[in-house]
Amino acid sequence: MNKQDNILIIGAGLCGSLLALRLAQRGYKVSVYESRPDLRTVDISAGRSINLALSDRGFKALRLAGVAEKAREICIPMYGRLIHDIKGNTFSSNYSGRDNECINSISRGDLNAILLTEAEKHENVTIHFNKKCTSVNIENTIAHFKDYHTKEEFSINSDVIFGTDGAGSVLRKSYYLERKFLFSYSQNYLSHGYKELEIPADKKGNHQISNAHLHIWPRGAYMLIALPNMDGSFTVTLFLSYDEGEYNFDNLTSEEKITEFFETQFPDALKLIPNIKEEFLNNPTGALGTVKCSPWHYKNKTILLGDAAHAIVPFYGQGMNASFEDITVFDAVLNENLGDWETVFKTYEKARKHNTDAIADLALDNFQEMKNHVANPLFKEKRILEMALEKEFPEEYFSKYSMVTFKDDIPYAVAMKKGRAQDKALLNLVADADFKQTDNLRNLLKKVQEETNEILQEDEIAGL
Amino acid sequence: MNKQDNILIIGAGLCGSLLALRLAQRGYKVSVYESRPDLRTVDISAGRSINLALSDRGFKALRLAGVAEKAREICIPMYGRLIHDIKGNTFSSNYSGRDNECINSISRGDLNAILLTEAEKHENVTIHFNKKCTSVNIENTIAHFKDYHTKEEFSINSDVIFGTDGAGSVLRKSYYLERKFLFSYSQNYLSHGYKELEIPADKKGNHQISNAHLHIWPRGAYMLIALPNMDGSFTVTLFLSYDEGEYNFDNLTSEEKITEFFETQFPDALKLIPNIKEEFLNNPTGALGTVKCSPWHYKNKTILLGDAAHAIVPFYGQGMNASFEDITVFDAVLNENLGDWETVFKTYEKARKHNTDAIADLALDNFQEMKNHVANPLFKEKRILEMALEKEFPEEYFSKYSMVTFKDDIPYAVAMKKGRAQDKALLNLVADADFKQTDNLRNLLKKVQEETNEILQEDEIAGL
Repeated sequence: MNKQDNILIIGAGLCGSLLALRLAQRGYKVSVYESRPDLRTVDISAGRSINLALSDRGFKALRLAGVAEKAREICIPMYGRLIHDIKGNTFSSNYSGRDNECINSISRGDLNAILLTEAEKHENVTIHFNKKCTSVNIENTIAHFKDYHTKEEFSINSDVIFGTDGAGSVLRKSYYLERKFLFSYSQNYLSHGYKELEIPADKKGNHQISNAHLHIWPRGAYMLIALPNMDGSFTVTLFLSYDEGEYNFDNLTSEEKITEFFETQFPDALKLIPNIKEEFLNNPTGALGTVKCSPWHYKNKTILLGDAAHAIVPFYGQGMNASFEDITVFDAVLNENLGDWETVFKTYEKARKHNTDAIADLALDNFQEMKNHVANPLFKEKRILEMALEKEFPEEYFSKYSMVTFKDDIPYAVAMKKGRAQDKALLNLVADADFKQTDNLRNLLKKVQEETNEILQEDEIAGL
Repeated sequence: MNKQDNILIIGAGLCGSLLALRLAQRGYKVSVYESRPDLRTVDISAGRSINLALSDRGFKALRLAGVAEKAREICIPMYGRLIHDIKGNTFSSNYSGRDNECINSISRGDLNAILLTEAEKHENVTIHFNKKCTSVNIENTIAHFKDYHTKEEFSINSDVIFGTDGAGSVLRKSYYLERKFLFSYSQNYLSHGYKELEIPADKKGNHQISNAHLHIWPRGAYMLIALPNMDGSFTVTLFLSYDEGEYNFDNLTSEEKITEFFETQFPDALKLIPNIKEEFLNNPTGALGTVKCSPWHYKNKTILLGDAAHAIVPFYGQGMNASFEDITVFDAVLNENLGDWETVFKTYEKARKHNTDAIADLALDNFQEMKNHVANPLFKEKRILEMALEKEFPEEYFSKYSMVTFKDDIPYAVAMKKGRAQDKALLNLVADADFKQTDNLRNLLKKVQEETNEILQEDEIAGL
């Protein structure tokens, strides 16, 4: 590997554009091909505004590339969940007991634009839009493309190919179809899909409900969430089964049934979504899938990064953060000066894969937590205790959510293992009423720590 | 659905031929297409003799189809593991504390032949060999084939298609490639492959080592196993990493290195395998994969059964048994008279899928147990205790292995959940030295049961 290698990146989404920027900063020659038009020049105001949660792991990678402050300017901090019950009552649940720990609502498009613009400032980067990758010959590192405008088909021959082409990755599909090696691969869909709706800004352009929270309407079998946008609107997402239960995407096909569903299940939200019927009937229903695979690379020739390697469901707000953290980890491996791309790729996957597997599983867990548990009395009591522990012992206690979201020095796999044990310890303490409200917090902390360690130890023995 | 429906079964392996037999017994019209030649007419003595473990779940399905006794005649019962250490010392570990509970070594080919012959006794069954399915049009239930002899390509149009075409199922691949629905799918390979070798019979045609055991040479990173055949030989299987460790398939390429490997690691086995070098160099290295997917069916048109729906690794000896149990469960669903194939298929998957997922996971666990744990002192002590409990309380205590293997009335998923909790309880008791050898067994049983229930309860609370 040397700086004269021709590097091809397939996909200029969030991960691909940050990768291009970082590789350019390190002096590599990078060509990026993206299937969609340049989102900085096309009017997408008619489309939907999609926002994502940016948190510490994402910021760490953005800092590495020198763009964290630019991103910060378009962030809306959210300090906790605001939970709406069926009667319209709300209660809040902080994400952390430490002040200033928050997640951030950010526009996917605006952040992507920042990254593209920064990457293009480097002479050694070229970005080509409207070029759809159709397949990759992995043995000869040749990628085949089709131009959306001219319909012309062409091929790019390069030394190394990075596939950052998202959950539907064409490079990954080529791994599966070419069968040149044993490719472990999974795509798993939830029985729920999602649909995006909008709460517009009020007449003054302000947010109609708190913009310092992520809003949740948990209803067990389904839920609604809302994240604020800079223009005063909220992007609302409904998560609902395709075909099970009284209400589902298959049977919500008439205006009457849609109205009935929202009137009975989300009455306070309904009042804020003026175009509910049009939006519900016209906006597409999206699928929720988890993708895992291995190996991510083929010889010294190709590698998958970001969603292409590990697409996850959105319920931990970690999809973008995990993809950005890929860049942090990959960059650290490059620092080791391992000499050849194959060793770099192997070392990277070995360091990274168990952590992306973990966040995939955590994100699935959180679907249950968000649509169900947040309204469960035992769970609520546990969260109150955790917040008290974090507030009192900000350097000693970290909830699973805090480890995943705010502790970018704790790998996802460690956060999962320790966090699950800690959750189990706390929930069983609360369920047993095995602690006294009068007990001081220091004793409680000690008890939780002891129980957590015992659980980890017993699991260790059971796993021999 | 009615008895005049034309049913096409793709694949006449163990699952397909038992399915054909059972559907014929119920009065259905069945055509079976198989890619390989008729194993009853082709001389396969030059090939390898492959044997499998047949146990209670398998027998239950064979009884349903009236062929259990025919199968019993070609069984060699194995009552436990015989474990060989690196110095050639052996110790045995029974599969059960109850007398007469055993698993059976049986020839795949001979059992398949029995099923084919029984199926063909029915006028409403036709079986076609050397016809390779190349793809399936699932919307129009048209399967495309190629004849291996004539090279002719042809298509079969039927009312319903059953895919029993094994781990590499063409019907399943058509689900993936046609993208007519959200198809959750995973194929996961172990980092280990396998290679088959042979211990021949002695000059009198007798077995050279105990034929009442499944032999294991556990070495941590790899292992050898051997199952007896009716002709006095043993089929030996080496499980070894492709590319990790001092010895692996990638570096065992010279006769010297192969001999060194067996001389240092399996000296007693080496003496019994006269053609080690030829066999090692000429026999293929097989991959070990787990396949899960969902949904198994498409509308009222097609369904996957057996390995095509749920291929598993061989370490629990349950692959064939799970496929046969598919037939038991499917037959019970047919008894419900649900009226149409789509309802039958949905009902079947709902009843069955969580159980085949469970046996897939259990089989992966058992790889660790066989190559590693069986030689671990803690594990050995646990097994001794379990055998004592089963012997003393044959109606009250069932190890995880016993529940999976001998209790065909306990679904795999229940056996996994309860068995794992029980293993954890026992291992932690043994590790804590938290029990007295002098304690009577009744007290120990009570303690294990209490701990097991507590573990299950705490898990329940942690899962809310």
